[in-house]
This record gives sequence, structure tokens and C-alpha cells, in this order.
Amino acid sequence: MTMTDPIADMLTRVRNASSVQHDTVDIPASNIKKEIARILLEEGYIKGYDVIEDGKQGLIRMQLKYGKNGEKVITGIKKISKPGMRVYADRNNVPKVLNGIGISVISTSKGIVTDKQARELGVGGEVICYVW
Amino acid sequence: MTMTDPIADMLTRVRNASSVQHDTVDIPASNIKKEIARILLEEGYIKGYDVIEDGKQGLIRMQLKYGKNGEKVITGIKKISKPGMRVYADRNNVPKVLNGIGISVISTSKGIVTDKQARELGVGGEVICYVW
Repeated sequence: MTMTDPIADMLTRVRNASSVQHDTVDIPASNIKKEIARILLEEGYIKGYDVIEDGKQGLIRMQLKYGKNGEKVITGIKKISKPGMRVYADRNNVPKVLNGIGISVISTSKGIVTDKQARELGVGGEVICYVW
Repeated sequence: MTMTDPIADMLTRVRNASSVQHDTVDIPASNIKKEIARILLEEGYIKGYDVIEDGKQGLIRMQLKYGKNGEKVITGIKKISKPGMRVYADRNNVPKVLNGIGISVISTSKGIVTDKQARELGVGGEVICYVW
């Protein structure tokens, strides 16, 4: 993967690490990626994350989460808006994922939020990804 | 279907009429729908279309096309950008459909065009639908 889409790269790393049941996954840091990590934590998809300074752009080390029998907590994760093909939802059409079982992550004028928060705030925005 | 999305309504009518092998399908007219009909004709997906004045918004009567053994020429047709969730492709990322077997219809600053024409013109735009 070229790094023209750093968020797609982050989601791919999480998907791959999760499928082989790694405890942690490291991701080159950025502000928006920290926000996505924060949402994954708040929504119960990961155990935690640390931001590690490395003198360069820094790393996000995410602690992945599994069920008692090792089942994945993140069943799926999908990039929606892409650098060349942008997807925007208006405030009345912020997408639900699996009828509310999953979340969508929306970049809004009020920051990076879940679909539920976007509806509460009454804002739309760019549809970054679905997680379920 | 509510008429909040007249183009989705058009595509649904075409899909339904095609699946029961009707010879024609009538659609309430609009300029953008005439442009989509024109593209379907130019790309060989329909036999022809007439614009019929009815003293109101007018009708587009499309003549549908089938193979020798009655097989559908329009295998599939899918709305991409929607009123509440807009999808925009930039000039370098105009989407191919089934690797060029189908077409995407793009609303650009140069008018309603196919993905191939958009690439030739060097323009991006709103991704209206895929047809294959």
C-alpha cells in the first residue's frame, strides 16, 4: 500500500493485527489517527492506546481486545471516504452500521465523532470509516 | 420510494421494467434524467428514448434492449451518490466499473459524462451511478 491514504493504512494494520490476534499494533501517529484510536477505545473496540514519542512523527500503540475464547472484538473495519473519492453525509443522513451494531466515524466541524454523536450534535461530515 | 431522489426512482423503474422484460418504461422527465438516458443510448444499454410532452414536466419513454434469447442488456444499475450522502471523485480517481465492462455516470463541470469521457476531459465530479 502506498501512503497516499494514512488512515486506510491504519485500518489495514488494525485489521491484520486483529486477525492474527496480536496484543498490540503500532501505527505512525497523526492527530486524526489519535482521534480514531480514542473513538475505538471509547466505543469498546480496543483495550487502550499509548502515544509514543520517537523524535519523529511518533507512534500510536494500540492494545487490541479479544473475547474470552479469543474472538475478535473488531469484526470488520472499512474505509469509506478515500482521497480520490470523498463521501460526505449531511446531518440527516449520517450512516448507521448494521442498524446500530457497529459505528461510523465522521469528521465534522465539531471534531471526529461517532455517527450517534454526530446525530446528537446535529452535524454531518466526511464519512471516514465503518467499524463493527 | 419517496421522490426525494428522482434519479434513484428512474434507475429503479429501469431495473424493474428490465427484470420483467418490458419493451418500454416511462419516467417523469428532467434535464439530468434526459442526459442519463442519452448516455444509456450512446453506450448501447437501451434501444432509444423519446421525450413526450404532457403539459407538465414531461415523460421520458425509454425503449429497453434485450439479447437474442431475451437476456438483459442492463445487468445491473446502482445509484452511488445520494441526496444525503454525496460521493465525489477527483479527476484522477473517476471509478471504473467491473474493470471497464460497465460504466459510471459522472456529473462534471463539462456536463453528464461517462467515466471514460471524464478521464479524456480531465475532470472529476459527482458519481451518479454505475451501470453494467
